[in-house]
Amino acid sequence: MRRIKLEIAYDGTNYHGWQIQPGMITVEGVINQALSELMQENITVIGASRTDSGVHAKGNVAVFDTESKIPAEKICYALNRYLPWDIRVQSSIEVPEDFHPRKVKSKKIYEYNILNRKISLPTKRLYSYFVYYDLNADAMKQAAKFLIGRHDFKSFCSVKTQVMDTVRTIYNLDVEKDGYMIRIRITGDGFLYNMVRIIAGTLIEVGRGAIAPEDIVKILNGLDRELAGPTAPAHGLTLLGIEYD
Amino acid sequence: MRRIKLEIAYDGTNYHGWQIQPGMITVEGVINQALSELMQENITVIGASRTDSGVHAKGNVAVFDTESKIPAEKICYALNRYLPWDIRVQSSIEVPEDFHPRKVKSKKIYEYNILNRKISLPTKRLYSYFVYYDLNADAMKQAAKFLIGRHDFKSFCSVKTQVMDTVRTIYNLDVEKDGYMIRIRITGDGFLYNMVRIIAGTLIEVGRGAIAPEDIVKILNGLDRELAGPTAPAHGLTLLGIEYD
Repeated sequence: MRRIKLEIAYDGTNYHGWQIQPGMITVEGVINQALSELMQENITVIGASRTDSGVHAKGNVAVFDTESKIPAEKICYALNRYLPWDIRVQSSIEVPEDFHPRKVKSKKIYEYNILNRKISLPTKRLYSYFVYYDLNADAMKQAAKFLIGRHDFKSFCSVKTQVMDTVRTIYNLDVEKDGYMIRIRITGDGFLYNMVRIIAGTLIEVGRGAIAPEDIVKILNGLDRELAGPTAPAHGLTLLGIEYD
Repeated sequence: MRRIKLEIAYDGTNYHGWQIQPGMITVEGVINQALSELMQENITVIGASRTDSGVHAKGNVAVFDTESKIPAEKICYALNRYLPWDIRVQSSIEVPEDFHPRKVKSKKIYEYNILNRKISLPTKRLYSYFVYYDLNADAMKQAAKFLIGRHDFKSFCSVKTQVMDTVRTIYNLDVEKDGYMIRIRITGDGFLYNMVRIIAGTLIEVGRGAIAPEDIVKILNGLDRELAGPTAPAHGLTLLGIEYD
């Protein structure tokens, strides 16, 4: 028995998120089916990040166990032939049998894209959130700095969550303006439910002047979801990658 | 009566090209319908470029005549409310009544995107042509230079065309590598049927070493479509804009 780690890219537009749900088309479900067909075994992956409906990925991670003798590095090429074009496995390598993608310490890197112009651009609409009022990217950048570090992110977590410990570490949070696209890039040791989208929604509020950059500190300290901005839409979000120690 | 010029962006994925065809969903058809609803008149636009099925646009141009008193600059905002999200009118201005978008001298700017990496990326698949073998962008750049200027482009024109005069001027043709994306940007006074896609297909042949850069001269002089490379797929192509004198 070998454990294989996959790095998976997908366009989330047509999926009800990562996680298997009865009667819904999900990325996990489609990958399980393709793997089972390729390997002629019944295969169930363990995913690293259960991305929401509509969220995209460049490097989500999943592992599975197999008896097959196919060289690990070749599996991604063979598997892609069984997958639709909006899912593409980027790499496949063998890992220790006890490697668990949610239990091993990792850094996750997300990107949130905001299309900030007067009129939307059709070819960008599926992978960025269109905001027509002028955003001040410098103010957003300033606000972002207050979120870096180890904090209780209860204010930036959907109330639906069942997690008790809401302390997380953000290693890096950068706002970059590239023409009419504003990119928020965030690296952390883990994220609460909807945390990246609530951070994006709050930074947008800062960008349009509704929240002052330094008020981020009050929002953090308040430990109350009501204080932060709205949850920005899923389709602006991409999971860029997961780095394991 | 006023003549209004529209600058139109669209994602060509779900359209059978620009030009109205019976029983097909086309960009022109959808715009005529939206304009007629908005203006409460029967409106037919005259388009500048009849882009093929699957080709995208950031700035195609069309004009129409109207009795309406809506300020010209506001028409684009009002019109977008009647259009699907994959078509967005970027601007609307009044032009002289005899302005014809295909008869006034213009420069057209196209971009062809090639996603050049071992494995495709789902979020780029709709707007670039995926090529998995390594392309030499420097060789492509070198080859591109031979196409700049006033030439008979018969070799770079689909044999289906009925045009007699195949002489055109390319003002600019640049190949740029940006990470795994190779962008071909081309400006000319007009293009023959499939000309940009045949140029892209030929430059790809150069990039993989099947055609030497200097052989472009022979291909041009041969005046034979068989000498050039294949027609690259439509979805890699975007009409960036049209500049009028």
